[in-house]
Amino acid sequence: MRILIIGGVAAGTKVAAKLKRENRGDEVLILTKSEDISYAGCGLPYYVSNVIHERSQLIVNTPAAFEKLTGAKVKTGVEVTALDREAKKVTAVDLKTQEEAEYSYDKLVIATGASPIVPPLPGVDLKNVFCMRTPQDAEDLRKAVESGNIKRAVIAGGGFIGLEVAENLKEKGIRTTVIDMASHIMPGFDPEMAEYVENYLADIGIMAMTDTKLEGVEGTDKVEKVKTSRRAIKADALILSLGIRANTGFLADTGIELAPNKTILVDEHLRTSDEDIYAAGDCAMVVNRMTGERAWSPMGSSANIEGRILAQNLEGADISYPGVLGTGVVKLPGLNAGRTGLTEAAAKAAGHDVITVLGAVDDKAHYYPGAGSFIVKMIADKTTREFLGIQVLGKGAVDKMVDIAVVALSMKATVNQLEHLDFAYAPPFSTAIHPFGHMINVLLNKMEGKLDSFTPAEFQEGAAESYTILDAGLTPAIEGAEFINPAEVEGELQNHPKDEKLLLVCTKGRRAYLLQNRLKYFGYTNTKVLEGGTMFNGTELTEE
Amino acid sequence: MRILIIGGVAAGTKVAAKLKRENRGDEVLILTKSEDISYAGCGLPYYVSNVIHERSQLIVNTPAAFEKLTGAKVKTGVEVTALDREAKKVTAVDLKTQEEAEYSYDKLVIATGASPIVPPLPGVDLKNVFCMRTPQDAEDLRKAVESGNIKRAVIAGGGFIGLEVAENLKEKGIRTTVIDMASHIMPGFDPEMAEYVENYLADIGIMAMTDTKLEGVEGTDKVEKVKTSRRAIKADALILSLGIRANTGFLADTGIELAPNKTILVDEHLRTSDEDIYAAGDCAMVVNRMTGERAWSPMGSSANIEGRILAQNLEGADISYPGVLGTGVVKLPGLNAGRTGLTEAAAKAAGHDVITVLGAVDDKAHYYPGAGSFIVKMIADKTTREFLGIQVLGKGAVDKMVDIAVVALSMKATVNQLEHLDFAYAPPFSTAIHPFGHMINVLLNKMEGKLDSFTPAEFQEGAAESYTILDAGLTPAIEGAEFINPAEVEGELQNHPKDEKLLLVCTKGRRAYLLQNRLKYFGYTNTKVLEGGTMFNGTELTEE
Repeated sequence: MRILIIGGVAAGTKVAAKLKRENRGDEVLILTKSEDISYAGCGLPYYVSNVIHERSQLIVNTPAAFEKLTGAKVKTGVEVTALDREAKKVTAVDLKTQEEAEYSYDKLVIATGASPIVPPLPGVDLKNVFCMRTPQDAEDLRKAVESGNIKRAVIAGGGFIGLEVAENLKEKGIRTTVIDMASHIMPGFDPEMAEYVENYLADIGIMAMTDTKLEGVEGTDKVEKVKTSRRAIKADALILSLGIRANTGFLADTGIELAPNKTILVDEHLRTSDEDIYAAGDCAMVVNRMTGERAWSPMGSSANIEGRILAQNLEGADISYPGVLGTGVVKLPGLNAGRTGLTEAAAKAAGHDVITVLGAVDDKAHYYPGAGSFIVKMIADKTTREFLGIQVLGKGAVDKMVDIAVVALSMKATVNQLEHLDFAYAPPFSTAIHPFGHMINVLLNKMEGKLDSFTPAEFQEGAAESYTILDAGLTPAIEGAEFINPAEVEGELQNHPKDEKLLLVCTKGRRAYLLQNRLKYFGYTNTKVLEGGTMFNGTELTEE
Repeated sequence: MRILIIGGVAAGTKVAAKLKRENRGDEVLILTKSEDISYAGCGLPYYVSNVIHERSQLIVNTPAAFEKLTGAKVKTGVEVTALDREAKKVTAVDLKTQEEAEYSYDKLVIATGASPIVPPLPGVDLKNVFCMRTPQDAEDLRKAVESGNIKRAVIAGGGFIGLEVAENLKEKGIRTTVIDMASHIMPGFDPEMAEYVENYLADIGIMAMTDTKLEGVEGTDKVEKVKTSRRAIKADALILSLGIRANTGFLADTGIELAPNKTILVDEHLRTSDEDIYAAGDCAMVVNRMTGERAWSPMGSSANIEGRILAQNLEGADISYPGVLGTGVVKLPGLNAGRTGLTEAAAKAAGHDVITVLGAVDDKAHYYPGAGSFIVKMIADKTTREFLGIQVLGKGAVDKMVDIAVVALSMKATVNQLEHLDFAYAPPFSTAIHPFGHMINVLLNKMEGKLDSFTPAEFQEGAAESYTILDAGLTPAIEGAEFINPAEVEGELQNHPKDEKLLLVCTKGRRAYLLQNRLKYFGYTNTKVLEGGTMFNGTELTEE
């Protein structure tokens, strides 16, 4: 069988290698536009700041080494320009010689990936405007950084790549501003979580300007100012991380079904609308594992999983791809962020009877050096009790919390099934009551009415406006609020009738919960705990 | 309702606090022998070496603070000596005054924990013989360490506590030997995994002497030599971590059903054979979540889960404790170890059609600073495809790998259901093909006959004796073995007929698998990959 693969980064090389292992007799040829194949796109931001020292470390395999190791053939520097489904062949142009050639196939795999969006704005062709998609992009930015001429940078786009670049530029002492046309950075997180990160980044010197559109670049021969819908920002460099667009231009008018965003629609076998043509990786539109709806999740990890399935199916297997959860994790300076499953917004859109909880919990034994907090938001269905998603922030192992949730979501666990799990505990790793288990307990307390609370989102929307704040922290911390030590409450509170609306707030939420518990016992009927306490809601909190 | 709780560390305080939150009207009294309650037993080894600085950090709550915070009462310094089930009361002795008093109950909770085993051997009462169970034990050992008089120490017992003490003593420059009467340290790990750790510890200067029985201590007024069944070891201190025994002596002749090891048998509601008496924590014998068989898993984490369930059941709930998985994790110097589920031995004993796989995988992107390897053993049932257990070693986040498995095991996932999971990936956290997912792929390759291999255990048992070793590493590494670069194999090997028994070995296993794949294609019928390669089997490997 002759299998032609267009594209040679994650999905393309994975398909090729696995195909040859499944059946070495196959003829497998990769056509790729770039000279590099199989490179570590996710590592690029770390190369910029020399966290990763050598460019060669980013390249998993050279074409020659890959050919020898796998037995697949690789042709670099050729761009596929046309597909003839009838004749089962593609036309490709050699980018050096401009010569055209035709390549026939029995089966075709499209793994052309995606390209960074470069908006047609004045000045985007100036020197020191960078993308962050290929090793060459990273090399170019690194050279500029190492030249010492970049003192200020603007990053357009507050997704994970943009934020990783921001971290690495900050690491090199560059003043960095992130602009985003959306109302928040960190797509895939609910707004209050993103806002927490925005505030955190501002505190450490990375400004995130949201609702801010890139309008152009000014400068004589290089970037001097970045023009936005708010104001012009003085800058020596602009990094475009506005998102990516699937490289599927050559499929126009071929009849291959595309999604509105020009990604390729594939079925559960990763086959396109043409039974001899498959697609995987960043150019393919797959499904969300939970909702069954179409989902685009252009990640190196998904590309590998898809490539492995696709290759086996090409060799006659019948493996269904269950789809993506929308998992992601990002390292920021001193604060990591991870997520998987449905956001609160997505869960509501999917028709769930949504309940959420947000809390701050220790990430390891509080007395162990380096212990910190996780801020965790969990999303579930109140009626079916299905666990729906998690978002986690913290300086520690947010990836562990996310990966636990990945298994839970993939197994369609209910919240109750996630109670009482025998997680790993020793002080250097975790807490005796595991942070995931602890948050499940809090969620169940809320579901069962043992915890009455406002989420930070409800609080921001004004749900607590008619409430009196009581400060239940270890020491008074809320300006103007009455301080009450839960441990001292042995009956009705002075000056607070039992039907008064009371908002109970402490640092993380635990002491406020204890206070609520006592107040309920003494007949109070209108108390609410503020989830996340001052740690999460801090900047908003004062009692007037 | 009057609820009496005997014991005030993890389970006892958890029951009391939760009871009072469920119903503040209850009268809850803790009786405890010790003066400390609610202390962090798992943190003690880290206090010894001053990783945890203050003793107060180990104490979660003083009795007075606990009383105020929860509303439960605490009586310290009293030992319960008798139980009268008919009259529903216990007798307790005040350890200072020796006065006896009686305490009646409606419901009794036994959370008396366990005490370290101190064998009646000559010299165990000498100065500088320590246990590691209470804050005072840790204080005593720390004082001795800080006096500078301890140059050499022997630790009797190679369980997690013993090994944690070993790590912390080594940290203080003390030459440490661990002796264990079992054939391996690290109970709960299969022998080849334990042996790997033993070799590793020896390399960094912690000797583990197995099959070695403690026979006594010699010295004039303090420890000078530790006598063992092998030889006497010069030492200035002996730390006893030989295991623990449930504190249930006062239950003799009460009719409360005990297990042969004197732990208290409880049902799924954590009730003893007396319907008004419950038990939780280290003194209770629960069940294994997977096998349903009785299991003793004296861990602070389980004690907390059990306490929470027990309290709710006492208040009328009907919550079943699903039991333990036998999860554990330990930090060793430069090598962490974690496990959950059934070992290979336990899986066989439980009647499973066992298949295992062992491999070495990157723990994060290989180019990211600090990246290392996980050594992973997975255990599954070949027939039902049920995932049964995991054991992980590595300098990195072994706890993440274990916690992923905990959810999988608790949800009774098959190996196939664990394929294609959308785990969190970014270079600082993981690899594009997640290490857990990668090992699942390897296990499935083995189940499906795509990988033919010997496990390290099979290899140690001599399964490969008639095989010729081929070194498939990146560079030649096996003394006397023929080196073959898998990438160079394009047909039959010179001097190796197609039915020759060939053992294919590389560093971690991947290149050997590639070589096997090619050799099969070229007609070879008797090849085996050595799982774990030279990284795991290194010390055993030479070709004669």
